[in-house]
Amino acid sequence: MSRSEIKVYRHLMGENDLWAERTRKLLAERHLLMLNLIGSPGAGKTALLEAMVNRLAGKFRFAVLEGDVETTYDAERLDRLGIKASQLLTSGGCHLQAKMVHKALLDLPLDSLEVVIVENVGNLVCPAEFDLGETGKVAVLSVTEGEDKPAKYPMLFRHAIAVVMTKTDLIPHLPFKLERCMEFIRQVNGQVPVFPLSALKGDGMEAWIEWLAAQRDGPV
Amino acid sequence: MSRSEIKVYRHLMGENDLWAERTRKLLAERHLLMLNLIGSPGAGKTALLEAMVNRLAGKFRFAVLEGDVETTYDAERLDRLGIKASQLLTSGGCHLQAKMVHKALLDLPLDSLEVVIVENVGNLVCPAEFDLGETGKVAVLSVTEGEDKPAKYPMLFRHAIAVVMTKTDLIPHLPFKLERCMEFIRQVNGQVPVFPLSALKGDGMEAWIEWLAAQRDGPV
Repeated sequence: MSRSEIKVYRHLMGENDLWAERTRKLLAERHLLMLNLIGSPGAGKTALLEAMVNRLAGKFRFAVLEGDVETTYDAERLDRLGIKASQLLTSGGCHLQAKMVHKALLDLPLDSLEVVIVENVGNLVCPAEFDLGETGKVAVLSVTEGEDKPAKYPMLFRHAIAVVMTKTDLIPHLPFKLERCMEFIRQVNGQVPVFPLSALKGDGMEAWIEWLAAQRDGPV
Repeated sequence: MSRSEIKVYRHLMGENDLWAERTRKLLAERHLLMLNLIGSPGAGKTALLEAMVNRLAGKFRFAVLEGDVETTYDAERLDRLGIKASQLLTSGGCHLQAKMVHKALLDLPLDSLEVVIVENVGNLVCPAEFDLGETGKVAVLSVTEGEDKPAKYPMLFRHAIAVVMTKTDLIPHLPFKLERCMEFIRQVNGQVPVFPLSALKGDGMEAWIEWLAAQRDGPV
């Protein structure tokens, strides 16, 4: 490829996509699975990670890249449970960028890991638009948010390789119909696997962990 | 002011702020109150508006500017209740901009209105950064999101003139402590009034409506 062609390539992809491409190559070389968890503030992304710790013990080794606007609360929550977590602060930014994720990856002990989970900034819009070079995006949707969110924020749900539907223990107390929410998900993504679960009570966690293990064992 | 000074002024404010300034003048001339509701996807902003309809009947006349990424579900929900609602679609954008709000305002029958409520795109980050020329921003926080959101997304809570804490009927089923959430709010905004309420059950709605009426009657 000539120098001028490379220039066009850089221009078309943008800086973020170049860093994402570097991450994609790094993951492939290392046979690492990297999932990018995206959901609203309070959807239960950190609680999901907390609930995964015991269930993953002995199955595979994972680290978390924890994205937040400006606090370290979530990384501290994970640290208390012995999860290897690096805090990425966007300083007001509404999503993680590929460059900061790539640099944080390089600081991890990659030789001793099989899975990296990125917890993006709580936001259904902006993080869905940015490629981090991840193996796949996972949409985290709380049942308390209502059934229609997949249709109202379709970009995330269209591109997600899995949907985790959290806080199902609250369904009896909500005007929420699981079937109706599934219809909204199917409208934007006919095939995506959906994992209804309660991180608090444990229901549904096993199916999610099994899917995760299958992803790790499959061709990354 | 000379032409060159005006140029500097325009440059410093940016296009969004110029439109916001136009809206601010329009609201002042018309003695209109305009509140900008900002909260996560599924925080209960539309449900709050639905619950306000009957309680506002005969008190004052209001219209809603309904911001969404790409569906008209929320405007349809309000339309079914007889609320005057205009749908603003951002086509993927993560927040409303002052220009689209100003143009939608001009299409409303302003002579017959006292209050305009803007329901921003569900997002705790980006909408907080954009001035719409509103009388004030109102943070809408669901108790299902956890106590720490005011600290994790401080810009909104720092600038809000009120916080509506929604879905309080769910507190008995959640690991949520109201007192702890109040502490997080106070850390970023010592004075802001907080209205815990349940739009579904009606508890706390009266105090919120009274505050709204006082804002309308006060010096806008």
